[in-house]
Amino acid sequence: MEIITSNQNSRVKLWTSLQTAKGRQQSGSYLLDGWHLVQEALNQAAPIQAVIATEAQMDEHLADVPQGVPAFQVTDEVARHIAKTNNPQGIFAQTSLPNNSFDSKYVHAGQWLLLDRIQDPGNVGTLVRTADAAGFTGVALSVGSADPFGPKVVRAMQGSQFHLKVIKDVDLATWIDDLEENNYDVYGTTLSDTSVDYKTVVPEKSFALILGNEGQGLDPELLAKTSANLHINFLGKAESLNVAVAGGILMFALN
Amino acid sequence: MEIITSNQNSRVKLWTSLQTAKGRQQSGSYLLDGWHLVQEALNQAAPIQAVIATEAQMDEHLADVPQGVPAFQVTDEVARHIAKTNNPQGIFAQTSLPNNSFDSKYVHAGQWLLLDRIQDPGNVGTLVRTADAAGFTGVALSVGSADPFGPKVVRAMQGSQFHLKVIKDVDLATWIDDLEENNYDVYGTTLSDTSVDYKTVVPEKSFALILGNEGQGLDPELLAKTSANLHINFLGKAESLNVAVAGGILMFALN
Repeated sequence: MEIITSNQNSRVKLWTSLQTAKGRQQSGSYLLDGWHLVQEALNQAAPIQAVIATEAQMDEHLADVPQGVPAFQVTDEVARHIAKTNNPQGIFAQTSLPNNSFDSKYVHAGQWLLLDRIQDPGNVGTLVRTADAAGFTGVALSVGSADPFGPKVVRAMQGSQFHLKVIKDVDLATWIDDLEENNYDVYGTTLSDTSVDYKTVVPEKSFALILGNEGQGLDPELLAKTSANLHINFLGKAESLNVAVAGGILMFALN
Repeated sequence: MEIITSNQNSRVKLWTSLQTAKGRQQSGSYLLDGWHLVQEALNQAAPIQAVIATEAQMDEHLADVPQGVPAFQVTDEVARHIAKTNNPQGIFAQTSLPNNSFDSKYVHAGQWLLLDRIQDPGNVGTLVRTADAAGFTGVALSVGSADPFGPKVVRAMQGSQFHLKVIKDVDLATWIDDLEENNYDVYGTTLSDTSVDYKTVVPEKSFALILGNEGQGLDPELLAKTSANLHINFLGKAESLNVAVAGGILMFALN
């Protein structure tokens, strides 16, 4: 097995480039940091270009890495350089970005979460993880949302991207039209109590739920296109909920 | 109005000390950063030792600060020093910590959220904000939880600490005993499907909900003392939910 000791190594340069959107796009891949995520990628038979680990991590986990998956041992210093953190666990995988050519015309079943410009990476990752737990089929993110394959989102997804579809840079207006054409109920969300209390809704067919930007909420042009718009009634004095919490309440109540 | 231009000013030293637990304890106060929080403190008549603002912020907001609240103008440089961030809005308030001498023996009504060693400040703050939205009466945090008056928690609470009680450093075993003595249902939470599906529970009296540490969950000794323990059924493959999302789902379903 190749042992890499220099941050100037061309593979190391590739792996560090995965911290950036440009690097991920150029290589068509992103980085998994930590055994929990690497193991989940292996369990789900995700396409893996490389497993990268320090000597200690290689000793612990190499037996679980299938033959044919390229493995590279790195020094602790190189591991810190790849992770861009001071105390990485010391095991990574480079894995392929999912195929993003996905046409909403062909979505005929399963629940979908649509995200309109959700910008905080922790919120996006937590929402994908929550959609997975709630049994959703996929999450589609508009242009202007956090990149779901950036390091902070990947950490927060905790491997859920291997359990459901994660599609980025979609045009939500087109998605709403296509889903409604395919007999979906599409639910927007608002803070206004002139919309429908989510507790009164029992979906009788496939549905999509749209959540909006942390500060501005959902685009009014999208709200005008939905089948119905929902709100959560507050008993207390808080003005709003964190979008990931609101998404969790709605997804678990509706599905 | 006093204009403060030096980071060495003794008041500035006090305000910067509020970034630390020790500084907050010594002064019995904590810091609100940004007009949204300062305004909410004023609206709720919280005891305010000082409003601190740059010239631009003072021009915008001084008219909304009641007579008798000490106001101090600071330079942009001093504002950055107090905030410990590069781009603060430039308006702050020093406000009193709530009275923490609160005896669970006297809790006879209202829903309570109990937090067992929740460590991430964002989670603690989001949970307090969510408990407020769900109409809870208070949040009690065990020893070993994030300090609810540290800067990251205060940012995430978004002023909800002015709407409900926030009690820190409690002994949860005592709280459970006292609440059950006072005819409460106390619900623990687990990941185990041998506990009760939360969707089957309709509380018929006052209740408390306990959430556990992000990694380890709820202390088994506490789980053994509760009235019942609840779990959330997952339809998908995710192994767990973020604790703030789980708390939101449970609080809105139960209350």
